[in-house]
Amino acid sequence: MHDTVLKAGDHPFDQATRVTLRDGRWRGETSDDYRAFIGPFGGFTAATMLRALLEHPDRAGDPLAFTVNFCAPVAPGTFDLDLHLIKANRSSQHWSITLSQDEIGVAAFATVVVAQRRETWSHQTAQPPVTTRYQDAKVLPDFGAAPWINQFEFRFTDGAPRFGRTPLVEPASAHSKVWIGNAVPRPIDAISLSAIADAFFARVFHVRGEVVPFGTVSMTTYFHVDAAELAAENATAVLGVADANVFHKSYCDQTGELWTASGRLLATTHQIGYFKA
Amino acid sequence: MHDTVLKAGDHPFDQATRVTLRDGRWRGETSDDYRAFIGPFGGFTAATMLRALLEHPDRAGDPLAFTVNFCAPVAPGTFDLDLHLIKANRSSQHWSITLSQDEIGVAAFATVVVAQRRETWSHQTAQPPVTTRYQDAKVLPDFGAAPWINQFEFRFTDGAPRFGRTPLVEPASAHSKVWIGNAVPRPIDAISLSAIADAFFARVFHVRGEVVPFGTVSMTTYFHVDAAELAAENATAVLGVADANVFHKSYCDQTGELWTASGRLLATTHQIGYFKA
Repeated sequence: MHDTVLKAGDHPFDQATRVTLRDGRWRGETSDDYRAFIGPFGGFTAATMLRALLEHPDRAGDPLAFTVNFCAPVAPGTFDLDLHLIKANRSSQHWSITLSQDEIGVAAFATVVVAQRRETWSHQTAQPPVTTRYQDAKVLPDFGAAPWINQFEFRFTDGAPRFGRTPLVEPASAHSKVWIGNAVPRPIDAISLSAIADAFFARVFHVRGEVVPFGTVSMTTYFHVDAAELAAENATAVLGVADANVFHKSYCDQTGELWTASGRLLATTHQIGYFKA
Repeated sequence: MHDTVLKAGDHPFDQATRVTLRDGRWRGETSDDYRAFIGPFGGFTAATMLRALLEHPDRAGDPLAFTVNFCAPVAPGTFDLDLHLIKANRSSQHWSITLSQDEIGVAAFATVVVAQRRETWSHQTAQPPVTTRYQDAKVLPDFGAAPWINQFEFRFTDGAPRFGRTPLVEPASAHSKVWIGNAVPRPIDAISLSAIADAFFARVFHVRGEVVPFGTVSMTTYFHVDAAELAAENATAVLGVADANVFHKSYCDQTGELWTASGRLLATTHQIGYFKA
């Protein structure tokens, strides 16, 4: 537990996902702190790609829709990020971001829609989940899994994982609710939301009660607030609600919602992943 | 009502979404039958892009994840489709598809993951919706809206739209269930699923009870069956379940599920759209 909230720039997450511009190309570097089973945690990759766009001088608007296709594991070391403005409209832009490495070629490919949002009629149809408050929820102890997990703090309030050595006889629920924040508290902005969107444990682990080979293939996140609104929320943790629909022939999906404690839906996220079971 | 199911190639949908290869470039053409308010129905655009990939000789695998970003309205006439293989893996490929026109530049940009799926443990956690059977559900009469709507047959079983001249005093539910098939019956394959995924009426129409300016900005569809399984289902209509979470500052989302009558979830789809209200 930490009492202080670090400024965004000084935070380990910002250090790990930093990007630099050299010879007209953005570069990033993998971080041992954000390692997963094979290559970096997908949320690290997504966040670093989004950061490059948010730091791009031609970017106009806040993230609205963000899709990352994970094409190959990123190898340890540096990588190139090529940003391309596909289309600029009056109040929105469409971008693509290619993450590549010499030995691998393209390891990830993303599209981002950014938009300048205007006041309109506003209505949240989704009902805020009812669950244990953040301050009353138990912190998930370190269970010696991949390093990236220790960069976050998980407080499950429903559907905590049971990772045994043998699969469950009957499939368990794919549904869980969990407070997720950075292990070192940090204000939640669009970049950190884009990482937290991938921080749910794979649904296949929950349903089978065991850890099996799994990798996210494609992930899409929709942002329901702009940057100013997100900053005004001043949140350091969000309530994540995740579920799944289908596990079939090597692939499975996941749906996710990221809520504030006050009941505002900040983002929704969906992904499809590969599994072996 | 038609008694015969046309072969895929002869069907008006296939005629409208046909693509031709000339000088190494795929070309398509807009169709008056699939016009929406401004430009073509998004499902037409998506389906035509996906068709170009499925007809590409280097494509290996069935559609798994398909994201289309609608960058600008497609102008009436022909358009170019540029397909690019981003990454090929052992059992999957990542592609991008760019739809462009001389006067407009890029009008739509898509990414597709195709995969050769293998038998694994299989589990559908999603519960099939309980609703009125297809044969007992009333066909939505033609209400003189955009031409594309008449290319499909809608049988609402829950949350049928009420499109009045004034908005509702209190927002209505965003949830609806509707059987959707082609007006001229046609077997449902991945291409038609990719169009039907965009055939839900905009959630903002349902919630406000009126038609307001709306356009899909980004749509993602995940396919939970491969081509052989889909063909074996031999369905000509699917049960669509749609809902929304947030309408805020010019943008709103939509979640959708496409089910067979026998309770199999064929695809899930999500989108974010622009609205004026």
